[in-house]
Order: sequence, then structure tokens, then C-alpha cells
Amino acid sequence: MKVKRSERLIDITQYLMSRPRTLIPLTFFAARYESAKSSISEDLAIVKRTFAARGTGILQTVPGAAGGVRYIPAVTREFAETFLQNAAQRLAEKERLLPGGYVYLSDLLGQPTILNDIGRLIATQYVRKPVDVVMTVATKGIPIAQATASYLNIPFVIVRRDSKVTEGSTVSVNYVSGSSNRIEKMELSKRSLREGAKVLVVDDFMKGGGTVNGMRTLINEFDAELVGIAVFAEAIFSGKPMVSNYSSLLRVDDVNTQEQTIVANPGNYLDNTTFLDELAQPVATHS
Amino acid sequence: MKVKRSERLIDITQYLMSRPRTLIPLTFFAARYESAKSSISEDLAIVKRTFAARGTGILQTVPGAAGGVRYIPAVTREFAETFLQNAAQRLAEKERLLPGGYVYLSDLLGQPTILNDIGRLIATQYVRKPVDVVMTVATKGIPIAQATASYLNIPFVIVRRDSKVTEGSTVSVNYVSGSSNRIEKMELSKRSLREGAKVLVVDDFMKGGGTVNGMRTLINEFDAELVGIAVFAEAIFSGKPMVSNYSSLLRVDDVNTQEQTIVANPGNYLDNTTFLDELAQPVATHS
Repeated sequence: MKVKRSERLIDITQYLMSRPRTLIPLTFFAARYESAKSSISEDLAIVKRTFAARGTGILQTVPGAAGGVRYIPAVTREFAETFLQNAAQRLAEKERLLPGGYVYLSDLLGQPTILNDIGRLIATQYVRKPVDVVMTVATKGIPIAQATASYLNIPFVIVRRDSKVTEGSTVSVNYVSGSSNRIEKMELSKRSLREGAKVLVVDDFMKGGGTVNGMRTLINEFDAELVGIAVFAEAIFSGKPMVSNYSSLLRVDDVNTQEQTIVANPGNYLDNTTFLDELAQPVATHS
Repeated sequence: MKVKRSERLIDITQYLMSRPRTLIPLTFFAARYESAKSSISEDLAIVKRTFAARGTGILQTVPGAAGGVRYIPAVTREFAETFLQNAAQRLAEKERLLPGGYVYLSDLLGQPTILNDIGRLIATQYVRKPVDVVMTVATKGIPIAQATASYLNIPFVIVRRDSKVTEGSTVSVNYVSGSSNRIEKMELSKRSLREGAKVLVVDDFMKGGGTVNGMRTLINEFDAELVGIAVFAEAIFSGKPMVSNYSSLLRVDDVNTQEQTIVANPGNYLDNTTFLDELAQPVATHS
């Protein structure tokens, strides 16, 4: 039975949102709704306009016989600014201060709505850039990896500091923990990363960059390619950082255990991202 | 500027899907689109019908001055059956067999599309049941917890087997690992679970139920309430299982290391779930 436009628009929106960065042929929708391709084209033009107007993301049209449409999640600068200001404020709550000057983050990184926004923000940096897999290290980076991978619609892999019988053969590397200057070990299941894969590294917190640098070594061991680094929060680090070219959503500028204060601000993310409202001709990469 | 129906339907769909189980007042949409409440009511009736027809979920209407609408994700029986049959087939791939008869799952549990379906399936069991928080134990349960929490739109907490300075004060319990019969320890940050919270426990794999039983002990220590247990896969266990009343999406019936075979089937999930197409008058619980 032919489906009305109103119902088509609702289901197209639902369908695309559940499959980011995936090319859907027009013929798929035409068959699904028993409607003419010309009607579907009109539907998609309305979806595209509405997604752009409401800051939902990009609807990319790929012309030709092998063409179709692709929904690419991306946020506007205003959305990112508001999110990061609120997040910085929450990060600075003095109740987060732990002995030793550590900052408690587990509540924030256990909230799906916050994680989804983090994922959308990081994914916005890869609208024009191909990525095959997101990598993180257990435990606290996992939710960020999963949220990011979900909006990029690619798999994520988890590097571990301990060995597990459920991972099979692994490749392990030693790395220098930047903050403590100790030699540590991390490993990744051999079958989880293929040669040549383009890898985006994410983590919850970076200080000195030792852990991220360890993941870079691991990526080299797999003959894969590091295409980007994104962390939720970076700490001011007095020494020489072990990585450059990373994105930080937030920056912890000061932790004063005596006065019980935390100073947090948006990180460098806002300066090195092209937002939905700033993109001219977006090109997506995942099919 | 008044927004056309076609654009309203797209944006309402997008807005609701991003906020599962959250009550949205009609007045919110009326203001957002500068449209009459009667027009919004008509829009929502179309969304409700389409969501039901396409197996997207329930659009619950709450009448009265404090009322509004609420999108509750849920799947149909057919969707669940198809997903579980495919997942069982993948689980039985002989390449998954690891030394000691362990089964490699990390690739499946690192794919956002699979995780999202797992989350939707588990969330379907809680359409009528209040849940405040999802709990799991590090590491492999985390992606399942996050996906489930995302569709329930509630936080998740991570129990750890090791101590971390970034967790603050913790409560720890000892538990008997069902399969190895050893005494182990697990702990949870004190500030991450409040008294009386209704907790859904999830994990990737269960054999004997020792780990899940440990989480039950922990929930008791926090004076919280266990409202359900869901695991991705359970293994056939010859001894007396330490938990009953759990849901398993899949069941590993046999692992033969000599003949290199794994036999996997859908678990008890299909038998103890009321699906989208079987619900009479759904009642949601999260506002």
C-alpha cells in the first residue's frame, strides 16, 4: 500500500537517524513506501532542509545510479559552545575534588545524554575525513569511544592494561605514563584491528599524553594509521607533552586542593572544528 | 515563523528519538513551531501511528495540564527473533573459539549497530517497569550497559575489580566466582548509587552467575533495589546457578574444542518479554 508523505517523512527521519553515514539508495525508500522516486526525492529535500535548519546534521545527496542519501551527524557552533560551557561548569563543581587532586568524572561519563553529545561533537570533526575504527583504553574511555563510534557508525576497539583469556592472541607494547613516568604495558587483541585501518583515538582524560602515545605505538605495531586524537578533558601539564595534534573538549586549568577549587574551561576543540553551519560542501566517506 | 507540517513531523521525530522516555509537553512543540496545540496534536497522532506501524516504538500520550508525549523505544517480536537468530549464527562461527573453550565476542560487542539493537531489546522488557540506573562490571559489560541506558535514558554505573584513585571512596564486596569457585572482590564508587535506586544489572556473559550475584550483594550494600538482570549470552552451567530470574539474549549450548564447534541459540529472552506488537496499554515510568 502506498504510504502518505506525512508517514514517509517520519519513517525516513527515523531510518536515517538509526544509520549515520550509510548510503541509502532512493530505490530502497521507493520500494519501502511503494512510492515514485520523484516523490521520495521531494521528501528527502524537505528532510535535508529541516535537518540543516534544526542543527540535526547533513543530508548528503549522492547522484547517479549507485547514488542515494546519507545522513551525517554534525553540530552547530552554538550547540557546541553551549554544551562545553555547561560541561566546564559541571566539571568545576568542588564536590568532584578527590584526594591527590583527582577530579571525579564517572557520573558525567555515565549519562547517555552527555555521552551522546560528546559523540556528536567529536564526530563533527570527521564529516570530511575517513575513519574506520575508534580506539580507546579500558575503562573510562569506553563510553566515549562507543558514543563516538555510534555517530560515525563504525566499530570501536578496547585496549587493555591487563590480559584476558577472552581476547585471544594479543599484541602488547610498553609505554611511559607521562604523569608518573613509569613504564606500563597495554595490549590489544590481534584480530581486532586490520592493517591500514584509519584509527581515531579517544580517551576521557589526558595529562602528558603517555597513554595516548602508547596507543599510537600500538597502532604502528598493527600497521594501521592514526588519523586523530580526541579527549574529553586535558589537564594542564608542566612537562613536555608526548602528543600534539589532539582535540580536547575541556581543559582543567587549575586544581587547588587547599582552597578546594577546580578551574575548567572549553579546550581547543572549538578552535579546530568546522561546524555544521560553517561547512560549504560536505563530503562524507563511509558507505 | 510558523513551521509547515512536513517540517514539524521530521523535527518532532528527531526530537523524540533523541530523548527516549522523557515527557515532552505539547506546549513545547507548539512554541517551537509557532503552531496551534491542535495542529501539534494531529502531528503527534501521525507520529504515533507511524512509530507503531514501523516497529519504532510507542508514543505514549499523557493527558491533562501536566501531560504531553513520551517516546518509549520497544521492538516487535519479529525484530527480536530475526536479530537473535542472526546473532546466534555469528556467535557459532568457529573462528571465535579460543584456547580453553572461551568464545571471542569483542568484535560483536564493539559494533554500535549490534549494541544498539541489544539495548533496544533489553529496554523493551522495561516498557512498563521503572528503572533508575543500569549497573555492570568492567570491562566487557560496559558497552551493553551504555546501549541499554541510552534507550532507557537513565545513567549507568560501572563496578570495578580494581581500585582507582579517580573513583573516590568506594564500597567493596567479596563474591564467589561461579565458574572458578574463587573469592574475588568488586567495588563501586560510593557516590554513584543512591539509596532506594531501582537497578538493572547487565553483563556480556554469564556462567554460574557469580559476578552477577556479586553485583546483587553490592546493590544490597547500597540499600538499592535489584529490578532485573539481563545478559548478552549465558553458558550452559553444570552446577547450581547462583541467580535465577535473569534474561539471556543468547545461550551457548555447547563448545567443543576438539571438533572446533560452538552451538549457540537464542536464550530465554524471547519467552519472558512482552513485545511492541503485544502490548495493550503501555505505561511508561521515566519523566
